[in-house]
Amino acid sequence: MTAADPTVGELSEGAILRRILDRLGDSSALVGPGDDAAVIAAPDGRIVASMDTLVHGPDFRLAWSSAFDLGWKAAAVNLADIAAMGARPTALLVALAMPDATRLSFVEGIAEGLRAACAALAPGCAVEGGDLTVSDTLTIAVTALGSLEGGSPVLRSGARVGDVVALAGDPGRAARGLHLLFTRFRDAEGSPIAVDERSLTPGERADLFVQLRPSPPLRLGPIAAAAGATALMDVSDGLVLDASRLAAASGVSIALETASLGEDPASALTGGEDHTLLATFRPGVRLPEGFRAIGSVVDRGEAAVLVDGRPHTGQGGWDPYRDWDSRGG
Amino acid sequence: MTAADPTVGELSEGAILRRILDRLGDSSALVGPGDDAAVIAAPDGRIVASMDTLVHGPDFRLAWSSAFDLGWKAAAVNLADIAAMGARPTALLVALAMPDATRLSFVEGIAEGLRAACAALAPGCAVEGGDLTVSDTLTIAVTALGSLEGGSPVLRSGARVGDVVALAGDPGRAARGLHLLFTRFRDAEGSPIAVDERSLTPGERADLFVQLRPSPPLRLGPIAAAAGATALMDVSDGLVLDASRLAAASGVSIALETASLGEDPASALTGGEDHTLLATFRPGVRLPEGFRAIGSVVDRGEAAVLVDGRPHTGQGGWDPYRDWDSRGG
Repeated sequence: MTAADPTVGELSEGAILRRILDRLGDSSALVGPGDDAAVIAAPDGRIVASMDTLVHGPDFRLAWSSAFDLGWKAAAVNLADIAAMGARPTALLVALAMPDATRLSFVEGIAEGLRAACAALAPGCAVEGGDLTVSDTLTIAVTALGSLEGGSPVLRSGARVGDVVALAGDPGRAARGLHLLFTRFRDAEGSPIAVDERSLTPGERADLFVQLRPSPPLRLGPIAAAAGATALMDVSDGLVLDASRLAAASGVSIALETASLGEDPASALTGGEDHTLLATFRPGVRLPEGFRAIGSVVDRGEAAVLVDGRPHTGQGGWDPYRDWDSRGG
Repeated sequence: MTAADPTVGELSEGAILRRILDRLGDSSALVGPGDDAAVIAAPDGRIVASMDTLVHGPDFRLAWSSAFDLGWKAAAVNLADIAAMGARPTALLVALAMPDATRLSFVEGIAEGLRAACAALAPGCAVEGGDLTVSDTLTIAVTALGSLEGGSPVLRSGARVGDVVALAGDPGRAARGLHLLFTRFRDAEGSPIAVDERSLTPGERADLFVQLRPSPPLRLGPIAAAAGATALMDVSDGLVLDASRLAAASGVSIALETASLGEDPASALTGGEDHTLLATFRPGVRLPEGFRAIGSVVDRGEAAVLVDGRPHTGQGGWDPYRDWDSRGG
């Protein structure tokens, strides 16, 4: 305990809130933080809304992620869901549940990460409300809101046979970054230890950065929508698994070509947390810059996803209930 | 482990989600659950948005609350924040973070409680999206969205000297219900034990019901707004504490009269989780049915809140960081 950096348990909710609000930047809402609720503009009469949660343990480890990283990532992964509808993010709400031993400086770091991610990835979007509670498990639940700006939402269900399957972003890097953490930065008991960046190659450092502080290609969501994307989704659980969801929603199968997936197709196919944008476009449509063709939409077959013409076998991505084991790592 | 009631750890995210969606009732959104984000109508070009979290430990105990109770309460307390802006709730998003030993039937109970609370308290409002994650601490984070239907939001900052202070709802009951739980339904070590309703008087049962399954006077939010309320807020942390927040936001003091606060003014003044609606109206305005006068707005003085003409001393309500001690109760 230090006077300069008290724990949240030593402070009132109001005092913590003031320090957070000081770091969130300017509100652009009709009614910003501080009342019972925020009021957000929805100029075209609709609002896009999504929610995602980062939980200490399955989603992050404090030995590996700074408070700034957590705030950044909590914002980025939620903003990605808005972009994946073809919308522009306009506001975040953030519910922080923290052990009362959490340092105030840590909370401030989360706020700074949230602000920086909004500024970098979705200018004009800010944290406009939220909630503070006590919890034994540090948890950051974020709601993202966005505007379709007059356009139609691009759903997972719109892919048609013959469409080109396209991807924006760099699949597999986040998974390689996570693999580095699990293989190189744990002690003999398997507990996470601090990352020593000097031990990493430049490529490894880049993979780790994508894992800890992702920058999804958000601006390409509305661009894909304007270019006529028939389906669009955020790839968060692995390309094959998420492509199989898009295929199921659209009643089609998706044929992927590994030749278009870079030098590490295994990671690209099944790695989680990519936050790439998976889109389908009618054949002959010129793909917006930033997208590249990775396959095609074919008739619904037994396998939802084909890889180089063969049904994909094995795990297609990450499922929190199947894959997370709190005893490990 | 039983085949009939598996744990969430034995199931895929998709399988859990399907069981939840089966119990949530019909979507009334433009795009409901199942895509990257929901799309909610915002007919007047604005959306009211708020977020609140229930965390196992500080906010509920599984010995005392059923899954249905939790779903109901998580919906009700969030809907109350929308009503407190003068708005009508239109959609909820729900992020559930659960230990993987959680039974599927428990998750279904939460979904049923969410649905029932929406049906009873905010017809037309439904769960339209959310998130499932694993956590060591059962956590229910809810975002509520609402429509002002062309009206102005009623803020905390609009109270003016001379206004009548009015309240809708029954302050102190939820706190008395919590007091019953802490004093009568814990074992010798202080751990929560199941409630035996037969040991309670009818009045005690009613208090407990208000604590576990609150029914805030939501429909009175828009009615207060239409009647010209100058300020409006959800009383969640205790009447004196929340009145002091309204007073601070408005630059006034608030004088309360205990004679208007029923037979247990001490609980009414400081009890948390009331989810009553605190409003101010210009003098001479006929109060909407359901509101009663409990005081008046006076010039800003040293004390934000006066009770029977004297500054209120002592704790005015509940502050999670000050009041929650995970070692107790």
